[in-house]
Amino acid sequence: MAACLDDKFESLEAVLAEYLPEDALKKVSLSLRGPGAVDLELPASAKETAKQNNFDLQGYQIKIAQKEQTRPERLVRIGAIQNAIPKPTTTPVQEQRDAIHQRIDRMLAVAHECQVNVICMQEAWTMPFAFCTREKYPWVEFAESAYDGPTTKFLAERAKKYNMVIVSPILERDEQHGDVIWNTAVIISNHGNVIGITRKNHIPRVGDFNESTYYMEGNTGHKVFETDFGRIAVNICYGRHHPQNWLMYGVNGAEIVFNPSATVGALSEPLWSIEARNAAIANSYFAVGINRVGTETFPNEFTSGDGKPAHKSFGHFYGSSYIAAPDGSRTPGLSRIRDGLLVGECDLNLCRQMKDKWGFRMTQRLDLYADSFARAIRPDYKMDIVKDPNMKQQ
Amino acid sequence: MAACLDDKFESLEAVLAEYLPEDALKKVSLSLRGPGAVDLELPASAKETAKQNNFDLQGYQIKIAQKEQTRPERLVRIGAIQNAIPKPTTTPVQEQRDAIHQRIDRMLAVAHECQVNVICMQEAWTMPFAFCTREKYPWVEFAESAYDGPTTKFLAERAKKYNMVIVSPILERDEQHGDVIWNTAVIISNHGNVIGITRKNHIPRVGDFNESTYYMEGNTGHKVFETDFGRIAVNICYGRHHPQNWLMYGVNGAEIVFNPSATVGALSEPLWSIEARNAAIANSYFAVGINRVGTETFPNEFTSGDGKPAHKSFGHFYGSSYIAAPDGSRTPGLSRIRDGLLVGECDLNLCRQMKDKWGFRMTQRLDLYADSFARAIRPDYKMDIVKDPNMKQQ
Repeated sequence: MAACLDDKFESLEAVLAEYLPEDALKKVSLSLRGPGAVDLELPASAKETAKQNNFDLQGYQIKIAQKEQTRPERLVRIGAIQNAIPKPTTTPVQEQRDAIHQRIDRMLAVAHECQVNVICMQEAWTMPFAFCTREKYPWVEFAESAYDGPTTKFLAERAKKYNMVIVSPILERDEQHGDVIWNTAVIISNHGNVIGITRKNHIPRVGDFNESTYYMEGNTGHKVFETDFGRIAVNICYGRHHPQNWLMYGVNGAEIVFNPSATVGALSEPLWSIEARNAAIANSYFAVGINRVGTETFPNEFTSGDGKPAHKSFGHFYGSSYIAAPDGSRTPGLSRIRDGLLVGECDLNLCRQMKDKWGFRMTQRLDLYADSFARAIRPDYKMDIVKDPNMKQQ
Repeated sequence: MAACLDDKFESLEAVLAEYLPEDALKKVSLSLRGPGAVDLELPASAKETAKQNNFDLQGYQIKIAQKEQTRPERLVRIGAIQNAIPKPTTTPVQEQRDAIHQRIDRMLAVAHECQVNVICMQEAWTMPFAFCTREKYPWVEFAESAYDGPTTKFLAERAKKYNMVIVSPILERDEQHGDVIWNTAVIISNHGNVIGITRKNHIPRVGDFNESTYYMEGNTGHKVFETDFGRIAVNICYGRHHPQNWLMYGVNGAEIVFNPSATVGALSEPLWSIEARNAAIANSYFAVGINRVGTETFPNEFTSGDGKPAHKSFGHFYGSSYIAAPDGSRTPGLSRIRDGLLVGECDLNLCRQMKDKWGFRMTQRLDLYADSFARAIRPDYKMDIVKDPNMKQQ
């Protein structure tokens, strides 16, 4: 089994800051994260609340967009929240959910103090990530209506009060279509109304992530939501591994794409810093990777499809939420081991400027790929392979 | 203008190794590069030759594939060569090309000593990257026949002698189709025959990279070449910014995809470490990013479309060639400032194992994207945008 970082490793940035002299740190940071993100001063009271409530609070500006003659700058403060579950998974469902609501309520208030305009939580944020158990009850009882469930009501009130767009990734119970369960993000306007919903397009069947047991591939396509604070979209968790998924949100005009996730170290950590950032680059938008944090333990033992003995713990969700910009710059990551709120002030004009600079939409040749994909899905498709006629092993 | 690293910065790894104590370095390396790549011992004579000829030589093993019952392991040594042009650009064309041939000849001999099976050079490796000038002559005189030009003849001989597949990215003169110029990679078998060619699919129109002046989008699709040492494909330079391009090589069964490039610091360095690695992850293959190195100066001044005064120098090609594995691990990068040969021993069985683990081909939903892309290219396409009905700025 390959080595992975443990839950003592707070963050890459913390280690580098400890050992590197200033000049070397500056160059290494430039090499690792590009030139775009610089520190953003946040209110002292917000920092104090974060400290008292033991969550990581970090703020950055990404304001490298040029001034334009015909458009004013469009500064938006993006927020990302990562959190551990506050109560044991054996606690009654409503109590668990209420405790999470309370925790997030406090973090949303700090986000408001930090003037955040649009914010997103982690995947299935109102519950433990219980899909590893493959048990249906009590876990599906965390599912709720996207439009008028308790979580949407709770957030709609805060969204209006704080003038903040809130993206709420939940487990959805869809009563109108046979009570099915979906993995869904609800987009709540800063005016308190639900703008719409968007569902997880790609579902994992990987180790503990037996999610196809619970819900199917989303049927909402690649919707983009136009708000007072820009055009936003949501690529939920495993969808980040599929570049064509990120691409379609870009084709539909997204300027900020959130990737609410839940993923653990041994499985995906070498991928985490790459995928959302690549999406930001390839699609000239801001991409926000948000990961759950902490270790969750379940009442009954389960196996992970890896030949190892049954166990009750899921492994360590490594947090490390970050924002990547269309020029390839990124912010440092939040803590790997603590709850956190990340605030990024971005000029959305950078999106179109990067399209103009790099021309990726202009040179994308979607006609070629529409045709190639259509051919590739045919049962009789033959891969376009040219064989060396002199090969030894024919 | 955003900050960028200069040509004094040898590599990220060199700085980290200078300041970090062993334990911290180990964790930081794991965080930055994943668990897969470990040092590979190379022959002392090869190291000595590299030293005498002033090029960086690095070797790694990526052997984390499991043993299988029904397939033997398939160890392949991949090579990547990056080099500066040895002669000034004012030297006669043939003399410049001959000098590059000689330089590469020496590096190929070292690659052979290191038991490399399949190797690739940087984009347009037989010439300076003169496309910034937008002058046609003498630069197009570097173009040659893919099948029987002097470079293909030169390499076919070495390929056979060394039992090495050689991927040769050149400027191609296509006499059979009206003398047009292409940006092409020639795939030369270890038996000395040309297996086929593959052309650059996406052409940049970015700053000094006015390449559409010289050649058009490639017409060879996404061919994969089956050789004694695995199934290989070539995604040339700017094609790395298009994930759908990487994807189609994967759909066609590639196990190793080379990305021969020529790109400079201020333009693309924050993107470099991300894109080929993301492709390796998303497509469960080995991806090899190869970049030119050094600064090239041209006889006549040219402008860069950035409002700055005319100049004769292109900026610094930052090398940093690396190999990324399908599990998301990567090797360190070669030097940012010197020629280099990178050797990576890989078990190609890891590709299918990662497909089985992650299931990205199984969950890719190409049918959805074939349809979405086909709709998106229609002139009357309307983006799928849901507008907040309560928006202030209607």
